[in-house]
Amino acid sequence: MTTAQANVLGSEAAYGRFFVPPTEYGLHVLSAQQFGAQNLEALCIRTDELRRLKTNPQTARELATTYLGQEVCSLFYEPSTRTRTSFEHAALALGIGVVSTENAKEFSSAAKGETIADTIRVLGNFAAVILRHHETGSAAIAASRSKIPIINAGDGRGEHPTQALLDVYTIQHHKDRLSGLHVVMGGDLMHGRTVRSLAIALSKFPNNHISFVSTPDLRMEPDIKRILTERGTTYDETFSMSEALEDPLRAADVIYWTRTQTERFARSAKTPWHKKLGDMLTRSSVALLESPARANGNSPGSFVIDRAALDNFRKDAIIMHPLPRVWEITPEVDGDARAVYFDQANYGLLVRIAVLGAILG
Amino acid sequence: MTTAQANVLGSEAAYGRFFVPPTEYGLHVLSAQQFGAQNLEALCIRTDELRRLKTNPQTARELATTYLGQEVCSLFYEPSTRTRTSFEHAALALGIGVVSTENAKEFSSAAKGETIADTIRVLGNFAAVILRHHETGSAAIAASRSKIPIINAGDGRGEHPTQALLDVYTIQHHKDRLSGLHVVMGGDLMHGRTVRSLAIALSKFPNNHISFVSTPDLRMEPDIKRILTERGTTYDETFSMSEALEDPLRAADVIYWTRTQTERFARSAKTPWHKKLGDMLTRSSVALLESPARANGNSPGSFVIDRAALDNFRKDAIIMHPLPRVWEITPEVDGDARAVYFDQANYGLLVRIAVLGAILG
Amino acid sequence: MTTAQANVLGSEAAYGRFFVPPTEYGLHVLSAQQFGAQNLEALCIRTDELRRLKTNPQTARELATTYLGQEVCSLFYEPSTRTRTSFEHAALALGIGVVSTENAKEFSSAAKGETIADTIRVLGNFAAVILRHHETGSAAIAASRSKIPIINAGDGRGEHPTQALLDVYTIQHHKDRLSGLHVVMGGDLMHGRTVRSLAIALSKFPNNHISFVSTPDLRMEPDIKRILTERGTTYDETFSMSEALEDPLRAADVIYWTRTQTERFARSAKTPWHKKLGDMLTRSSVALLESPARANGNSPGSFVIDRAALDNFRKDAIIMHPLPRVWEITPEVDGDARAVYFDQANYGLLVRIAVLGAILG
Repeated sequence: MTTAQANVLGSEAAYGRFFVPPTEYGLHVLSAQQFGAQNLEALCIRTDELRRLKTNPQTARELATTYLGQEVCSLFYEPSTRTRTSFEHAALALGIGVVSTENAKEFSSAAKGETIADTIRVLGNFAAVILRHHETGSAAIAASRSKIPIINAGDGRGEHPTQALLDVYTIQHHKDRLSGLHVVMGGDLMHGRTVRSLAIALSKFPNNHISFVSTPDLRMEPDIKRILTERGTTYDETFSMSEALEDPLRAADVIYWTRTQTERFARSAKTPWHKKLGDMLTRSSVALLESPARANGNSPGSFVIDRAALDNFRKDAIIMHPLPRVWEITPEVDGDARAVYFDQANYGLLVRIAVLGAILG
Repeated sequence: MTTAQANVLGSEAAYGRFFVPPTEYGLHVLSAQQFGAQNLEALCIRTDELRRLKTNPQTARELATTYLGQEVCSLFYEPSTRTRTSFEHAALALGIGVVSTENAKEFSSAAKGETIADTIRVLGNFAAVILRHHETGSAAIAASRSKIPIINAGDGRGEHPTQALLDVYTIQHHKDRLSGLHVVMGGDLMHGRTVRSLAIALSKFPNNHISFVSTPDLRMEPDIKRILTERGTTYDETFSMSEALEDPLRAADVIYWTRTQTERFARSAKTPWHKKLGDMLTRSSVALLESPARANGNSPGSFVIDRAALDNFRKDAIIMHPLPRVWEITPEVDGDARAVYFDQANYGLLVRIAVLGAILG
Repeated sequence: MTTAQANVLGSEAAYGRFFVPPTEYGLHVLSAQQFGAQNLEALCIRTDELRRLKTNPQTARELATTYLGQEVCSLFYEPSTRTRTSFEHAALALGIGVVSTENAKEFSSAAKGETIADTIRVLGNFAAVILRHHETGSAAIAASRSKIPIINAGDGRGEHPTQALLDVYTIQHHKDRLSGLHVVMGGDLMHGRTVRSLAIALSKFPNNHISFVSTPDLRMEPDIKRILTERGTTYDETFSMSEALEDPLRAADVIYWTRTQTERFARSAKTPWHKKLGDMLTRSSVALLESPARANGNSPGSFVIDRAALDNFRKDAIIMHPLPRVWEITPEVDGDARAVYFDQANYGLLVRIAVLGAILG
């Protein structure tokens, strides 16, 4: 999206209904960045509406014939069953036919060697393509060659915009506001796509403060901090779980916890040294899985929310997690009213119905 | 299901319409055991009705809009294309949207480590989950944490309830009764999930007699025999094909034949000795595939129904098989009017339509 | 198809609407050969009609309820995401429920050993089966045992009839005729299923001339040439790209270019010598991918259509390709109005809608 376009969208003050702001390549969903504050607020209103419509069998039935005669292609170059399931569910809920593959690499197998640009053009009869790709930036490449809308369902370390949208909706739904919030983001902030996107989304609303909680090795990267500073969103950092329990976690309105994505770290290793480090982290996380001792307050394995940690949180806080969770939130936390991570996952369906609806018009 | 619940259901004498009796975890289809005699009879009536509805294009069309606006997730942790195909077909026939994966292990990959309990909660927007899992007892674990119905499509050596239901329907359809039957079950009775479930189902009706025909190594296990004895269902055992042709097979109303599941045997081996035995059986079954000589009347390879065997069977007998069949029924038998195994497989669609309808209400 | 049947169909002069001529096993789509000149013309009319219906949202909506209550099984024994996607899209566009597998080998895994004849009979409740199989002739075997229509979506080196149909439609659509054409077919003519089928289809219309352009090793096989000769369709052969640019390419109405299917060549190798040749070709094609030098006018790598080549073509020629394309047409050609290969791929949807409609009636 060019700056000019962003300004136009930002100035659309009278805007009421949720829509997808176009990118420089036309109508696509490529990045959480695309969506301005008003878009996000309108999304929340639309998602609430869809929750009512989808819950009532009669209106769910009507919803399921909305886009009869239109079909989307769910084109996944790497398996992501969770994301694919949610998107396909959303499409079906609107009466959109779904053609699905988690085997999209076969389109461009080594022997055949088709580019993604060619593949996208072959799919020109679909109403939209839901694209998951292992390479960062693939969604934009596809969009630049496509005559039909591309919905980015995650491209490498790049973006996963609908995840950011469902996170925003979860906060609005449970806290009834998107501004004036103290949000703690904890875990692997360096590799976590979701915390990066959510931080940017929160920076579009006034008076939010973000506390980053991680090991020093897995801290939030400077590009995001720079954006926050530019937009006047304050933040602080804490590198030990015991300290975090004293300070940011005690005060937080929203606690957004994530797992240590050791497998992604190992994969993105560029040098033998990084590779070795990735292997070590993977091994250590497995070890921690088996014995997540909290003795040491600043090893990755100590960043655990358990029943004891809950006592430190505000009564009206909410605990979010993009899931899957492994050991970083213990199952005993699930029953607590503040644990909303399973609801959060389920809101994904509604947000994706909203997005598909906005794309198909 | 608790004993108390079973009694309540058993006493529901005025019951007419097919429904799924709830389990201790709520409304789920976990086990063939759940279904009482009256349930099974009602299922057969409903399945007959569905056969008429599905055969007529006009009523099939109406059927296909029944549950518009509801979606199910077909969640398979191991591929079972045959079962998945039948369930998904059933859902589509009712207008239920289907989101499908045979790659469900990815939900909880080694690196990510999500439990099935978490996975199930993430799928909370579906009307039901059709679950196939490689571990015995997984369906009950999933059900215990699920707010939506779980339909067990096979969990390890545990249960595969809809297979048992379609077997019951096949018998009712072709023999017009579920009591007073002489049923021969032959093949690998130790590892065959279907014969175990069917034996229990038959024990719920009066005056049935079951003849088990297998090698001594692959005989029906004591737990099933104990249940039969408790319920007054008589049984006998024969360990040689040549003898079986003389006695139980000659008198049987229903001949339920199965293949030797050598691959499952090898997989379930607990000790090196068992492992070796499994390997031997696998090798020998492959050898038998190539040359299924019947010289020796009590090797697994001798338990073959061929055209010659047919002469010994009653004119009104039916030959069933859960399929796939390998060498244990020769293709020349397929043309005989008594061979109903392909019909049996096709009834699976109708029975699963009945079950999905009962679950979605 | 027997000769008797072919004659009957050939004499059906008054025929107007597109239908699928039955095979000797009943109503199936097994071969492009099945379709006579009048069928192909009627197909083009029907496809044009479907293009209008599918483009208009209101009629697309109506189309999407046509076959409500009917379901097809997309049964792929080898992945072919591109073909599967197109067929499933076509089915959904008609309101046909789709059950899908690219994992069909699991039906007949080594351990289980089910034959395709058995598998097909288990799928007897579907309205049709769309079958992709790695073994030549599998579609006919399946059809011979099936009570429901089989649609061949490619069987080994055998047939891929709907690809031929969409090629015919593309020519009719862009050239407004199927006779009196000069068609160049270039690339790997020995292994390319599409050029073989298209040559036969063109031979059913008068006054077509085909120019084959390839290396001597990859020339069109004699069986096709014999059919052309029998039917009075003339052809010539050129074995060097530089010569081809002078002669057939300069005069052609239709340029049908294909990639060198080195992976298929390697796979079909019968002797160690052929195997070695296949490996060499594979290696050389990879090398050519990286540096498709045109220095040598008769190596596989020289058969490239680039911007320079375009200057030699007629202004009203069309350039077709079955896709995926690798290096044999450079991306700079894509923008030329004569390059219709992406449209061609997209017509596949419409042709398959026509075929499914004709099969389901």
